[in-house]
Amino acid sequence: MENRTYTAEAEPGETATVAGWVHEIRDLGGIAFLILRDKSGKIQIKFEKEEMDDDLVETGLGLSRESVVSVTGAVEEEPRAPTGVEITPDELDVIAEAEPELPLDPSGKVDAELSTRLDNRTLDLRKDETKAIFEIRAEVLRAVRESFREIGCTEISTPKIVATGTEGGTELFPITYFGKEAFMNQSPQLFKQLMVGSGLERVFEIGPIFRAEEHNTPRHLNEATMIDFESAFIDHEEAMDACERTLLAAYEGVAENCEEQLETLGYDDFEVPDEGFPRLSYEETIERINATGELDEQLVWGDDLPTEAEKALGQDVGGHYFVTDWPSEIKPFYIQDHEGGELSKGFDLMHPRMELVSGGQREHRYDHLVEGFEQQGLDPAQFEYYTKMFKYGMPPHAGWAYGVERLVMTMLDLGNIREAVLFPRDRQRLSP
Amino acid sequence: MENRTYTAEAEPGETATVAGWVHEIRDLGGIAFLILRDKSGKIQIKFEKEEMDDDLVETGLGLSRESVVSVTGAVEEEPRAPTGVEITPDELDVIAEAEPELPLDPSGKVDAELSTRLDNRTLDLRKDETKAIFEIRAEVLRAVRESFREIGCTEISTPKIVATGTEGGTELFPITYFGKEAFMNQSPQLFKQLMVGSGLERVFEIGPIFRAEEHNTPRHLNEATMIDFESAFIDHEEAMDACERTLLAAYEGVAENCEEQLETLGYDDFEVPDEGFPRLSYEETIERINATGELDEQLVWGDDLPTEAEKALGQDVGGHYFVTDWPSEIKPFYIQDHEGGELSKGFDLMHPRMELVSGGQREHRYDHLVEGFEQQGLDPAQFEYYTKMFKYGMPPHAGWAYGVERLVMTMLDLGNIREAVLFPRDRQRLSP
Repeated sequence: MENRTYTAEAEPGETATVAGWVHEIRDLGGIAFLILRDKSGKIQIKFEKEEMDDDLVETGLGLSRESVVSVTGAVEEEPRAPTGVEITPDELDVIAEAEPELPLDPSGKVDAELSTRLDNRTLDLRKDETKAIFEIRAEVLRAVRESFREIGCTEISTPKIVATGTEGGTELFPITYFGKEAFMNQSPQLFKQLMVGSGLERVFEIGPIFRAEEHNTPRHLNEATMIDFESAFIDHEEAMDACERTLLAAYEGVAENCEEQLETLGYDDFEVPDEGFPRLSYEETIERINATGELDEQLVWGDDLPTEAEKALGQDVGGHYFVTDWPSEIKPFYIQDHEGGELSKGFDLMHPRMELVSGGQREHRYDHLVEGFEQQGLDPAQFEYYTKMFKYGMPPHAGWAYGVERLVMTMLDLGNIREAVLFPRDRQRLSP
Repeated sequence: MENRTYTAEAEPGETATVAGWVHEIRDLGGIAFLILRDKSGKIQIKFEKEEMDDDLVETGLGLSRESVVSVTGAVEEEPRAPTGVEITPDELDVIAEAEPELPLDPSGKVDAELSTRLDNRTLDLRKDETKAIFEIRAEVLRAVRESFREIGCTEISTPKIVATGTEGGTELFPITYFGKEAFMNQSPQLFKQLMVGSGLERVFEIGPIFRAEEHNTPRHLNEATMIDFESAFIDHEEAMDACERTLLAAYEGVAENCEEQLETLGYDDFEVPDEGFPRLSYEETIERINATGELDEQLVWGDDLPTEAEKALGQDVGGHYFVTDWPSEIKPFYIQDHEGGELSKGFDLMHPRMELVSGGQREHRYDHLVEGFEQQGLDPAQFEYYTKMFKYGMPPHAGWAYGVERLVMTMLDLGNIREAVLFPRDRQRLSP
């Protein structure tokens, strides 16, 4: 429809053709209004029954909500119209009539359960609020990619069908691949490491990851979109700098380019976090959590952080923070240890509500790496395609990954991570 | 390594620390040179044996190729050095020594089979030529995304784990999903259509697709990266406009931002194709192919285009071209037909070497859609999550998809599509 005008761009004084969905019809007797909605907004179509062609009036006012129509007519100023302009139709084409009973009300007047919304995403994304979330998500992706390019990253795509998982055989979905057993990849970890040893040195990937975890919570998904970063010749401290930078770039992008969407969602006070996220060592973290007095049982050195501990500390810190220097035994084999071996160079980035990022300096020394595999009960022979490359000049490197959905969820304070995914996958949900 | 200087940025007169791989050592007797390579280029490190610390000389010249080192020293102009500068080392740290026997020669002096290169991508991507291909690929992705944003597209991510394939049960990889049968998605087709019926109207996705096709050719992959576009309120002609636009944006991006990479690959004559790709109807296409006299057997109406026909016409046209108005029976159910039903509004975009894009105007009318399913022997009930949304106001829409790898392959005239994928997946290759 080359001659179509977006409703937001219809200028008084011209004749325009607009096309979109019937949002609402208000019949006041002698006069009636059809509110037409498109991607850009809404516009009022005026029907003066006595002065207009009967067929046109009948067709226009007989339409079911959410039908798709195109309307051609004169655009005029009308201060009482919702957007200050209205169209008096000369022509009205019914493009696709909607059934009168809708499974979901896109006007948002009737609340719907999340599961109904997810079953009917087409209708759900006709609501301004839902649409705003996904427009913000797209801006996050744009801003993060730009920020990666600013620090000299090359975008890569790594395979999602793999012979072995990053951390062995647990939590993987098995595939039948031409008669062979294969898996859907749970992380680009090993592949991005192979690439920092190449001439690219610094890479990023944004793509799907698959985890066959059985828990079903408001913050876990079985398929998620992961933002992965990895760079040669940096350590874990510099990796944290890069992590903070991309995260702030996402917030800045949204603050600058999504004002309308933030307003729709009611965030008048959307704030870009301050630079310089605190970096707490694991030891300090444990002490500080215990000092909050929020936990029934005190944490001891070596414990992973339970959800309630994350929450208690999150409230205490009041913003994003890194937890560094984790005990080696609770970090995976590919994380490098500090001298002595008890502490690792792994880190997490926490949002007050939950963990966002996992990262660290990697083990680049072949002998240590193979030892690490064995200590975690993995067979290094299964990962030979990976370990082998560490014999031919693997530079020191560090990196991290965070999920787009958790970032959007925490940024917009969404109650359930599924609100940040068009078609979520969990134990129960495999369709649409 | 915060104090690291890229070799390309080492300025004469300063003391710099560079870090990278030992590319080559040339020992001329009293003087010797180590060529250090990093992401940005190469630099000469000079060893004057009589004037330098013996240990430093011994360590530096005893290094195996591809070992990772960092070198600190004064940068000086030296017209005879490959880049016009050289470093006289004060300090040399061996970071990761490489085994002397390499499975692949990153200097490129010894040719390697493609399969050896794919098994050792880390080393393969230390070659300037291979690295250039993937830097160009990254620029293609950037440029295409920017071009999508310019025409008002919202980026989406659709699920890769699905209950049913786009075109039924053929050519799908089965997954075990929490005890249920599921598949890896072969295309975002149905999901992107669901999204153009939402308030987003115009969307794109760049992500992996999975096809269990058994053919093993230089231009097929079982996992590929697909660029998908779909828009409400446009027809197939406007979809072709958008297709051409993003494709030209990719070429323009590469021409502008990848001069060095193109030079490395020997493309002095890289050209952005002219605007206005010819649009040949299927009927004209058949006639023109038959007129070339290149085929043993003449094509008749209703035939799909065999590879040799594509090649014959490609040579005849000499550039990209669209083939439009295909017979309905050889296009999938979601493509709309012209009035009469014999011809469809589907199109392909062809590069002289091969098919690049498949697209068309979609069937948005519920009754016609369900009929189409039945005609192709598919059970519409299996796709109810999709068809149902067509009852609630689905606008006319059109779109297309093309693979990043085929685009890069044709753009750079690569002999095998696997050269445009870091870790290709085919019937034989599942690792690395």
